[in-house]
Amino acid sequence: MENSSTTGKPIRCKAAVSRRPGEPLVIEEVMVAPPQPREVRIRIICTSLCQSDITFWKLKEFPAIFPRILGHEAIGVVESVGDDVSEVKEGDTVIPTFMSDCGECTDCFSEKSNLCLKFPFKVSPWMPRYETSRFTDMEGEVLYHFLFVSSFSEYTVVDIAHVTKIDSSVPPNRACLLSCGVSTGVGAAWRTANVEKGSTVAIIGLGSIGLAVAEGARLCGAARIIGVDVNPDKFEVGKKFGVTDFVKVGDSEDKPWSQVIIEMTGGGADYCFECVGGASLVEEAYACCRKGWGKTIVLGVDKPGSQLRFSSFDVLHQGKILTGSLFGGIKAKSHIPILLQRYLDKELELDKFVTHEVQFKDINRAFDLLREGSCLRCVIWMDK
Amino acid sequence: MENSSTTGKPIRCKAAVSRRPGEPLVIEEVMVAPPQPREVRIRIICTSLCQSDITFWKLKEFPAIFPRILGHEAIGVVESVGDDVSEVKEGDTVIPTFMSDCGECTDCFSEKSNLCLKFPFKVSPWMPRYETSRFTDMEGEVLYHFLFVSSFSEYTVVDIAHVTKIDSSVPPNRACLLSCGVSTGVGAAWRTANVEKGSTVAIIGLGSIGLAVAEGARLCGAARIIGVDVNPDKFEVGKKFGVTDFVKVGDSEDKPWSQVIIEMTGGGADYCFECVGGASLVEEAYACCRKGWGKTIVLGVDKPGSQLRFSSFDVLHQGKILTGSLFGGIKAKSHIPILLQRYLDKELELDKFVTHEVQFKDINRAFDLLREGSCLRCVIWMDK
Repeated sequence: MENSSTTGKPIRCKAAVSRRPGEPLVIEEVMVAPPQPREVRIRIICTSLCQSDITFWKLKEFPAIFPRILGHEAIGVVESVGDDVSEVKEGDTVIPTFMSDCGECTDCFSEKSNLCLKFPFKVSPWMPRYETSRFTDMEGEVLYHFLFVSSFSEYTVVDIAHVTKIDSSVPPNRACLLSCGVSTGVGAAWRTANVEKGSTVAIIGLGSIGLAVAEGARLCGAARIIGVDVNPDKFEVGKKFGVTDFVKVGDSEDKPWSQVIIEMTGGGADYCFECVGGASLVEEAYACCRKGWGKTIVLGVDKPGSQLRFSSFDVLHQGKILTGSLFGGIKAKSHIPILLQRYLDKELELDKFVTHEVQFKDINRAFDLLREGSCLRCVIWMDK
Repeated sequence: MENSSTTGKPIRCKAAVSRRPGEPLVIEEVMVAPPQPREVRIRIICTSLCQSDITFWKLKEFPAIFPRILGHEAIGVVESVGDDVSEVKEGDTVIPTFMSDCGECTDCFSEKSNLCLKFPFKVSPWMPRYETSRFTDMEGEVLYHFLFVSSFSEYTVVDIAHVTKIDSSVPPNRACLLSCGVSTGVGAAWRTANVEKGSTVAIIGLGSIGLAVAEGARLCGAARIIGVDVNPDKFEVGKKFGVTDFVKVGDSEDKPWSQVIIEMTGGGADYCFECVGGASLVEEAYACCRKGWGKTIVLGVDKPGSQLRFSSFDVLHQGKILTGSLFGGIKAKSHIPILLQRYLDKELELDKFVTHEVQFKDINRAFDLLREGSCLRCVIWMDK
């Protein structure tokens, strides 16, 4: 049980505040207000760094905003709950997620969608339900939220719609990965694409998300997993995640990589996952998925205003399918517990994603590591 | 049984020959060579006119070619078979189809595809297996084939991969509709989209194909079928096909029709079928299908080179699905018999599609009727 002496009162604790774009986070004392109705205050156990944190840390324009508490891939323990919260209680181990699973709207009721209508995905500086912040600094200035999680803080407040209660037996530096990145990739293969046993999968971009797709495809029984990347070093890493073949982008002067995949598969991959965020990559992925049934799944976040172009003739005549996958089609409250169980059953391999671990005071080191490129996931432990 | 005295010999019979683009067909005597191995010579009972016949009759450039025997929606009786044909015999009632179902390739074996790899869809002037013609005129000049069927002739030769044997109890002026148009529309709802019971469907373009989609959606149990057209008269016709609501394109100055559909459905249609062939219509269909699960199915044939554009952000964040449907995803040999049975069971309503019937000698009248717009299907009976 947590110490309930803090219930209903603001908590003074340490947070890593992003005060200016691209500048090192500043670990400072902040005040975390008590949870409002349907909110939960969480003591973070550990958090891991995701590429989106870096994107919004560097970004100078809207929807970037400063000062902000970044971080959205985490695990923690409930310190206290606001009014009307019965789903979790003090001491429960929970995973916060940037995607809501309110359990009340049409989409949350449906097995077909993970796009909560009540609290739709957006990059907001506020809590989802009240459009206010729970953070202030020692001067009383408001600190903005990030993706409804803000886990770079010893304590944070998260709406109950964004909180999933989990079994505390999973090591926190593994379970936290399911808060965003690994769920996104594994879910894209499992939930969005529903990869068939024995099928051929192509993954464009072998970063953490692409490797998580490979892990998901492996779990679904894919027979062949083709990794596509500009960096051939990624193939060695990929092999640990079940990648069986590698195609280097730009390796052939006379033909695009999509043509290489068409030739090596005798017609195209059954599933193509674009994990980079480039319109031309999505178009090539579509080009090299199998006529008749091939699915192209977009996971990569492209720059604003980017457009995808497809030949009207090809769309009609090739019987291919194009779709997108946000958070891997994962419905947090029903699917994260399933993925954790598969980890406990030694099916889903989470260990290999964690390449680095640092203490909270060294959080800026985690940023350096992820930007250097050899890091997949760096777990940041809250200081004891 | 057919008169086998013609077996192995050329047959002299009447055909309606398209000699010059857009000019009336000329009914003349032609010679129909005997079927080659794996081919079948068919005596046509009746044929119906499809929009694609008119498109290729008017077209001046490649892949139009003259003189040609058009027609591809038909029913007939086997007159004789070439070597190595065991699937059908003299006297069998058959439906020829422009799409092959060879039964030997990966796609024909798969339940997921109807795009035969062995004889892929193309607008060829020849028979599919030998790239030659079976037709000559009385001067010995070659007459070209159309869509591997060429049914505007008393006799035609069709490859066995394009021939489906059917129960002869269905009236021929109903069964022939399943050779192309009605199968395309009904199949798009049934096979490609797999419309769920209780769902909302939007159909862009209430021509024959759009109305066949409505018929398919009705059979699948759609609760609401919204017809979209520039011509409000189509709504009255649509009601006979289960269309429950109508949106007139261009009716609202301040908002596009897609927005009207989003508002009237509280978020978008579960399925949008584009049956016209216009890039902007496909893009609007995509815009008004339901976030989270909405499917947009392209059936309309756009002009060559046309491109579809989608926002990369929308594709990633909206969880929608885009696909195309050629021949409605129908695998001729397994699905046409199912549709015929549903007609016999009084579920699939074919009668309402036949608005006109003419004798073969009046075939040019059929062209006039279809172009005038009030005709859905005009059945052309071979003269007795």
